[in-house]
Amino acid sequence: MEVHTLSDMSKQIEFVADINHLRRLFIMPDSPDKFMEFGNDLLNLIHAFFTEKGGIHSSISLPELSELFSDIDLPESPHLLKDVLTEIKEKIIAHSVKVGSPYYIGHMTSAIPYFMILIEMIIAALNQNQVKIETAKASSFVERELLAWIHRLIFDRTESFYKQHIQNPKVALGNVTLDGTIANLTGLLVARNKAFPPKDRFPGIRKAGFFEAFRYYNCKKAVFLVSRRGHYSIDKIARIIGLGQDNVIKVPVDSKNKIDIESLNQICADIRHHNIENSEQIKIISLIGVAGTTETGNVDNLWELRKIADENKTHFHVDAAWGGAVLLVDKYKSILKGIERADSVTFDAHKLLYSPLSMGMILFRKETDLENIKHSASYILRPDSVDQGRFTVEGSRPFSCLKPWTTLKIFGTNGFRILLEVAFKLTETIKDLIISHDNFEAMSYPELFIFTYRFVPKEVQQQLKSLQEKMASNAANLESIRKKIRKINNMLNALNVELHRLLRQQDNSFVSRTRLESTKYYPQKIVVLRTITINPLTTPEILKEIITEQNTLGMQIYNSVSDIAKRR
Amino acid sequence: MEVHTLSDMSKQIEFVADINHLRRLFIMPDSPDKFMEFGNDLLNLIHAFFTEKGGIHSSISLPELSELFSDIDLPESPHLLKDVLTEIKEKIIAHSVKVGSPYYIGHMTSAIPYFMILIEMIIAALNQNQVKIETAKASSFVERELLAWIHRLIFDRTESFYKQHIQNPKVALGNVTLDGTIANLTGLLVARNKAFPPKDRFPGIRKAGFFEAFRYYNCKKAVFLVSRRGHYSIDKIARIIGLGQDNVIKVPVDSKNKIDIESLNQICADIRHHNIENSEQIKIISLIGVAGTTETGNVDNLWELRKIADENKTHFHVDAAWGGAVLLVDKYKSILKGIERADSVTFDAHKLLYSPLSMGMILFRKETDLENIKHSASYILRPDSVDQGRFTVEGSRPFSCLKPWTTLKIFGTNGFRILLEVAFKLTETIKDLIISHDNFEAMSYPELFIFTYRFVPKEVQQQLKSLQEKMASNAANLESIRKKIRKINNMLNALNVELHRLLRQQDNSFVSRTRLESTKYYPQKIVVLRTITINPLTTPEILKEIITEQNTLGMQIYNSVSDIAKRR
Repeated sequence: MEVHTLSDMSKQIEFVADINHLRRLFIMPDSPDKFMEFGNDLLNLIHAFFTEKGGIHSSISLPELSELFSDIDLPESPHLLKDVLTEIKEKIIAHSVKVGSPYYIGHMTSAIPYFMILIEMIIAALNQNQVKIETAKASSFVERELLAWIHRLIFDRTESFYKQHIQNPKVALGNVTLDGTIANLTGLLVARNKAFPPKDRFPGIRKAGFFEAFRYYNCKKAVFLVSRRGHYSIDKIARIIGLGQDNVIKVPVDSKNKIDIESLNQICADIRHHNIENSEQIKIISLIGVAGTTETGNVDNLWELRKIADENKTHFHVDAAWGGAVLLVDKYKSILKGIERADSVTFDAHKLLYSPLSMGMILFRKETDLENIKHSASYILRPDSVDQGRFTVEGSRPFSCLKPWTTLKIFGTNGFRILLEVAFKLTETIKDLIISHDNFEAMSYPELFIFTYRFVPKEVQQQLKSLQEKMASNAANLESIRKKIRKINNMLNALNVELHRLLRQQDNSFVSRTRLESTKYYPQKIVVLRTITINPLTTPEILKEIITEQNTLGMQIYNSVSDIAKRR
Repeated sequence: MEVHTLSDMSKQIEFVADINHLRRLFIMPDSPDKFMEFGNDLLNLIHAFFTEKGGIHSSISLPELSELFSDIDLPESPHLLKDVLTEIKEKIIAHSVKVGSPYYIGHMTSAIPYFMILIEMIIAALNQNQVKIETAKASSFVERELLAWIHRLIFDRTESFYKQHIQNPKVALGNVTLDGTIANLTGLLVARNKAFPPKDRFPGIRKAGFFEAFRYYNCKKAVFLVSRRGHYSIDKIARIIGLGQDNVIKVPVDSKNKIDIESLNQICADIRHHNIENSEQIKIISLIGVAGTTETGNVDNLWELRKIADENKTHFHVDAAWGGAVLLVDKYKSILKGIERADSVTFDAHKLLYSPLSMGMILFRKETDLENIKHSASYILRPDSVDQGRFTVEGSRPFSCLKPWTTLKIFGTNGFRILLEVAFKLTETIKDLIISHDNFEAMSYPELFIFTYRFVPKEVQQQLKSLQEKMASNAANLESIRKKIRKINNMLNALNVELHRLLRQQDNSFVSRTRLESTKYYPQKIVVLRTITINPLTTPEILKEIITEQNTLGMQIYNSVSDIAKRR
């Protein structure tokens, strides 16, 4: 490996000698055994880290961590590779989040198949830049093959369509993007540009900008329509593309967190009415469907949304960053019914395709839709080239498509069926655990692996129940009953925040926490715990352990609060 | 490794058995030796691939490659890991571009230090998501430490500034971005939002969008100012953010491809004049400096640009995606003089910090500037959190900052000094080779490792020279001389396109090709060959070999064309 010779550099020995040392770091070492030894050590280390129980977040405090990474001076002298690896081991790996732990069921990040590490090695070693064919030969074709697979999975167009376009560089069925936000951005940019196209003397919004586009099309307002559960990236994109966040119309949802079709129809009717009555128009740039929501994993009625988009002559985008992968399993396809008629769909590989971070995709039903953002530059992307970079929001992009391409081969759709069946079972398991437990209350209807609930001691549940029965029986003092329910929920919110804090402190497992609007206590916002059960290493037994701990801690907090209350 | 058991899955054996096989793929194999054997094989393979001479792009044609990746069916049955790795070896690695070859001197992608592969293994295995602290603990602190280092390298604010802010989660000195385009986008979004801030009843452009912002601020036009050599991402960003590409004012450049200060001053004066004479204003959102240009690596006069930005009260952004790294070497800092007074700076790690693709950074001199794009979402990014995702355009992001953080430690600034000195020497070498050669003409002035030239047989050079002397002596028939020069240049353009095609066919080395506007033949556009010499494995001997081959092929083409001409 001979990296130790690098330490000589600080001695300022002869220039020629130094560059030789450095050069050696740019090729595989003469003795790959040594390199593999390092690799082996690292993998063992990582393996040990993940198989250790507990310590999901490491017990170090944030101020202590700050101390570890507060060197304001750029390193001047070279460090030995082995020293830096030791530093990484002690300061970074030890204090990383064990997102691959079967006890980590709080976010969309899960365990990854270990062969992904081999694939990342290949990606780094080849270091292809997907922006153009001169820097990415076979990898450009891999990308198009993968995109065709996912396109077919979603839109299922004819065989001849795919035979014609799978490697047709004149069009793009979609893009591999750096993440789901950029995928949504790409889809909604296409929608925006289609809404204000070139016409007569007007060169289109891409050239002229928003202000001129509004003037030419006699428009006073342009909007996105999305449910109140749309991902926060929709607001972000409205800000980025110049639409403005106030022009994202947030449509109410029903009790299952799905977009309320009646409200949506009313909003659209109002817009149509406005456009008939006024010369200054309101333009719907895109209707956006969610599959599924980040908080509760629920899916909009995509079939209905397509019809409404047609009635209002607008683009229909579906954010399936989370849920798209269930299309791999025939029996679950119906959950996303209607997605096949969307204009564009976002689909993340680093979620349910179990790729390491990060990689999104955006797919367009029409193979020519990406023309709406196509660009060229004489020195890098000639317009008549076959370069993928002509269609992307990003510039330089890594060969990350190799990750899901490989996983799809190694698992096959049969393997994914099994993995997703297990994930569905785990979700059912946790739901059943909560429903059958006296001290918990289920707070959402799980469709896609996400479940929310809260800790509510039995006696409080009974109080709440009797109050709600009184409400239903139309008692005289409705306002006072409502007030009591609100008060109890405020207590429960505080209790669950404290429970989550304590769980984080114990650090044996991890669930996330959020605040839901759509519950039977609407409009009061309810603090809930949230689980995402997609790690195939998580078992029903682990889920039981987690709930048992939550119950124990929850009761502790509740009892100590009650004690204080009694003593007062 | 036991992956062979996976093949049983296609036999549809019992469900429980199958999931156990799959689960095994999600943890390190019980016997890491087997895993390392795979890893070892892969590294040897990649090593062999890169050390092979020639075959930079592999001889396979694009239609043949299309054939290899035209399977329109998603894999259904699971494949064996070893079979997929063989497929990757034969179909992908064999037909990848050898961007790490010392003979590949045509793009900004170069060799990477081999320890980067180890680091990618760690990044994938940890799979942290930088969006929030719950999914990225130590890695969030690594990111802020790296950003503070690069911030200090660029802006060199006081020690106490860095001590205070290096780990201050209330502010962000910058963002790690997925690439340079997103870095530029982030910088220019901040500029846009600062240009149309909230005021009185106006909630700011982020909320209200472009149209309302123009109306409130009584604006008819908003523009970017950048030289005609600005990166194509600037146009792209103008389209994305709703400004419109027509509102990127492309300022002419001088003969060294640097922004022409006089023209810029004139444009600014015209805008100021317009704004005095008219009630509807023109707003300069940002003046953009280039360090250096993609085509020729030249650097704008950043010191002057800062002054002009101040005079016109606008944001000053510097795109140093390419050149930023030379700040690591004291003696080269003067090339970028003035960058320390920019408002925001783009800096890519996958270029001169020798990281694998892809990773950009955006740094802001003012630690509060990123407030202008800050956002929150109750379920993922609480406003009072310490999550990095509050400030980023992207959502999910990998732990890629570990790559330059490690490289900066292992090389140290001393190591980078040596690497960049070598790169400067290589650039001088190729320039000298071209200048001293009878059959080549230098076409640009190299500042940052990029050089352009063209093949011009000696006798044609003499013709051109004598025609130019006639021009200078103010001959009577100027128009006819100009015509002759144009005709010769047209021939030379065709000759160099053909030479480049032939070089690609021979595939022993790779230089890129572009068409320059700023040459002594302005306004005629001149086809040139372009070299980027930053790979420390490239040697002066290799450069000689490359030029010798170009001369031989060039003469072949020239002679065969001359023969045809004579025979006519």
